[in-house]
Amino acid sequence: MQAEIITIGDEILIGQIVDTNSAWIGEKLNAAGIKIHRITSVSDRAEPISEAVTQALSHSDIVICTGGLGPTKDDITKHTLARLFGMKLVRNEAVYEQVRAMTAVRHIDFNELNQGQALVPDGCTVLPNRCGTAPGMWFERDGKVLVSLPGVPFEMKTLIGEQVLPRLYEHFRFDAIVHKTAITYGLAESILAETIADWENALPAYLHLAYLPSAMNIRLRLSAYDVDGQQAAAEIDRQFALLDQAIPYRIIGYGDATLESAVGELLRGRGETVAAAESCTGGNIAHRFTALPGASDYFRGGVVAYSNDVKTALLGVNADDLNRCGAVSRPVAEQMAAGVRKATGATYGIATTGIAGPTGGTPDKPVGTVWMAVSGPDETYSIRMVFGSLRSQNIERASSNAINLLRLRLCGAPGNGLWTIRY
Amino acid sequence: MQAEIITIGDEILIGQIVDTNSAWIGEKLNAAGIKIHRITSVSDRAEPISEAVTQALSHSDIVICTGGLGPTKDDITKHTLARLFGMKLVRNEAVYEQVRAMTAVRHIDFNELNQGQALVPDGCTVLPNRCGTAPGMWFERDGKVLVSLPGVPFEMKTLIGEQVLPRLYEHFRFDAIVHKTAITYGLAESILAETIADWENALPAYLHLAYLPSAMNIRLRLSAYDVDGQQAAAEIDRQFALLDQAIPYRIIGYGDATLESAVGELLRGRGETVAAAESCTGGNIAHRFTALPGASDYFRGGVVAYSNDVKTALLGVNADDLNRCGAVSRPVAEQMAAGVRKATGATYGIATTGIAGPTGGTPDKPVGTVWMAVSGPDETYSIRMVFGSLRSQNIERASSNAINLLRLRLCGAPGNGLWTIRY
Repeated sequence: MQAEIITIGDEILIGQIVDTNSAWIGEKLNAAGIKIHRITSVSDRAEPISEAVTQALSHSDIVICTGGLGPTKDDITKHTLARLFGMKLVRNEAVYEQVRAMTAVRHIDFNELNQGQALVPDGCTVLPNRCGTAPGMWFERDGKVLVSLPGVPFEMKTLIGEQVLPRLYEHFRFDAIVHKTAITYGLAESILAETIADWENALPAYLHLAYLPSAMNIRLRLSAYDVDGQQAAAEIDRQFALLDQAIPYRIIGYGDATLESAVGELLRGRGETVAAAESCTGGNIAHRFTALPGASDYFRGGVVAYSNDVKTALLGVNADDLNRCGAVSRPVAEQMAAGVRKATGATYGIATTGIAGPTGGTPDKPVGTVWMAVSGPDETYSIRMVFGSLRSQNIERASSNAINLLRLRLCGAPGNGLWTIRY
Repeated sequence: MQAEIITIGDEILIGQIVDTNSAWIGEKLNAAGIKIHRITSVSDRAEPISEAVTQALSHSDIVICTGGLGPTKDDITKHTLARLFGMKLVRNEAVYEQVRAMTAVRHIDFNELNQGQALVPDGCTVLPNRCGTAPGMWFERDGKVLVSLPGVPFEMKTLIGEQVLPRLYEHFRFDAIVHKTAITYGLAESILAETIADWENALPAYLHLAYLPSAMNIRLRLSAYDVDGQQAAAEIDRQFALLDQAIPYRIIGYGDATLESAVGELLRGRGETVAAAESCTGGNIAHRFTALPGASDYFRGGVVAYSNDVKTALLGVNADDLNRCGAVSRPVAEQMAAGVRKATGATYGIATTGIAGPTGGTPDKPVGTVWMAVSGPDETYSIRMVFGSLRSQNIERASSNAINLLRLRLCGAPGNGLWTIRY
């Protein structure tokens, strides 16, 4: 069972938006046992849309299109698909009434543009969109399926979950795909590959290993296609247990795990809490924790101490230390961590202070220099790292490293060797 | 002049990473006057890579591939391209020495995997990668160009900026593309379209208007192809000035402008500062401000007051009001905004308190209910909005609305009508 995804819109091609829809759809279809052959993005013009759809239908059983269904003139997906499938646009009364009701609730005029949303190709199945005005459309030809969905992410996601997947399960029978991904932190790809070479070479032939690298977070995915699902899943678990022995404390979790979700689960299990004192990371650590549902169980709050005044006033950092050592220093980082712990009543305080860039570096403390500290009931400790020259990357890396410091402490990791990152 | 982008990697197809590379490349090529015909993502297997490359070269003059150049076994882009172009892999001494030096600096073993990075197809031009071990490769055939780049974003970006674009300028002559994008905030697409219909209908025929919608931020792009660049640019500016009169205070800026960058520029111009007190947005407002280079000019810091204790201890919120009205209430929001202003010495305080979800809602205060407040030297004011059921969206919308409240105040926007969002 093979699928393709087509995302439609000039804004994707010229990079004004990042196409997150196709990643989300790819993940859902893959989890349902459907292989994704290709993702294509094309412009809001009839010819490229027709060409991409025709090519996709010639390769694959399922084609999911998103985008180009808005009420305005530049959206032509519906007209193009109608022509391609030899259908006429007709008014769908259910959609018409739903758009009318939706505009009434929002005190929006039910104007000609909105009324146009109720026009659908006469041979398709309408998939009602309860979050917006553009309905989804389900086309069938020669046993293959093409689905056209709005590009607004939450409308698309609701339609996929509530309408498209159930219909696909009904319409097709799927092969089994089993996969699981281990998330590692702190080893660069080549070092990781060398360290686990023996493990990799001893994998059974039916398991496929993929490295999914990002800046410092390498994910290792084991996949098995068309095999006994239960047996493959058990073997994957066994292999990952062996991997964990080969790189102790480097696997932070599986699947969707992140450093902050791993720390959150550890804290929840211990009935402990954390707070963050952030200078160079500017609220990103707090944001990463609080993006998780249920974060209030273990996240107490934080202080974004961007100016030195705030470091002294809210975190009790010693003004003499600030003057003598500078804001980017071990004493300031450790006092920030201890200070936010005290101010919020959290079990642990995490702190960052550094030079995110692009300016502000000195020969002694170049852009990318960051001190990270953790303060707990028994001890306060800190490390210094020098990252790179990119502001956004420095913010992410400092956040990750600081959160990882606490993770290592909570896991009981020994000594100092694991605290630094090999990248 | 037409280009296609091919991103290679199973991790893209199954949605484990979002393909941000193609958006970035699309933006750069478009700005350079190159139209993007299509973006394609394919798996790390020889056949789909060959097929996508062959198709792209048949349509377009320029093909940019990223990904699949890592040192590990599952990366096969280089081998596939060599076969496609009928070339052999040979060791490139300059790359070999550079990888050796790079591994030495990082204290990484110069192992067989890393040494393999120095093998390149013998008929391509090597584009040295000073940020990583995989070089870029430039192939030419029948006057067309194919470039293969590593998938790690900052390596790819450096190669595009320093090597690929200068070579493309040398190799091709480009047509002129002029475009500019106005960023609007606070009007849904259909309302915006209706409000500006007269303006849209009066546009000169050679200007193309596109709506680029996201949740509450609609971008309007005017483009002109193959015309006198200077004249088109002046006409676009004139048209956007007319648009601004049609929807006063709704255009927050142009190009890359965001609510926080607009507020930052307004504050910088006035010599004023801001701080944030965040409950439900959990540090996201601080993160959005501090992601901007130079934010320390106007951003003083903030308090993430996730627990009620932190609201009283660090922000001086009245414990009786917290008990009587609840954390999600007008008095608490306004006391948080005033409190963070006082605690940090900022000119303005922004505050949010609400129920991000997915749990915690009540009949009176459903999930998505958020109070947002701004406190300044002369006044403190607040609004209540009820967003939706998605946690991440509620966090983003509450952050945007709160920042926009301050923007409207700084722009001198009248009354209350503009404060609510019509979505």
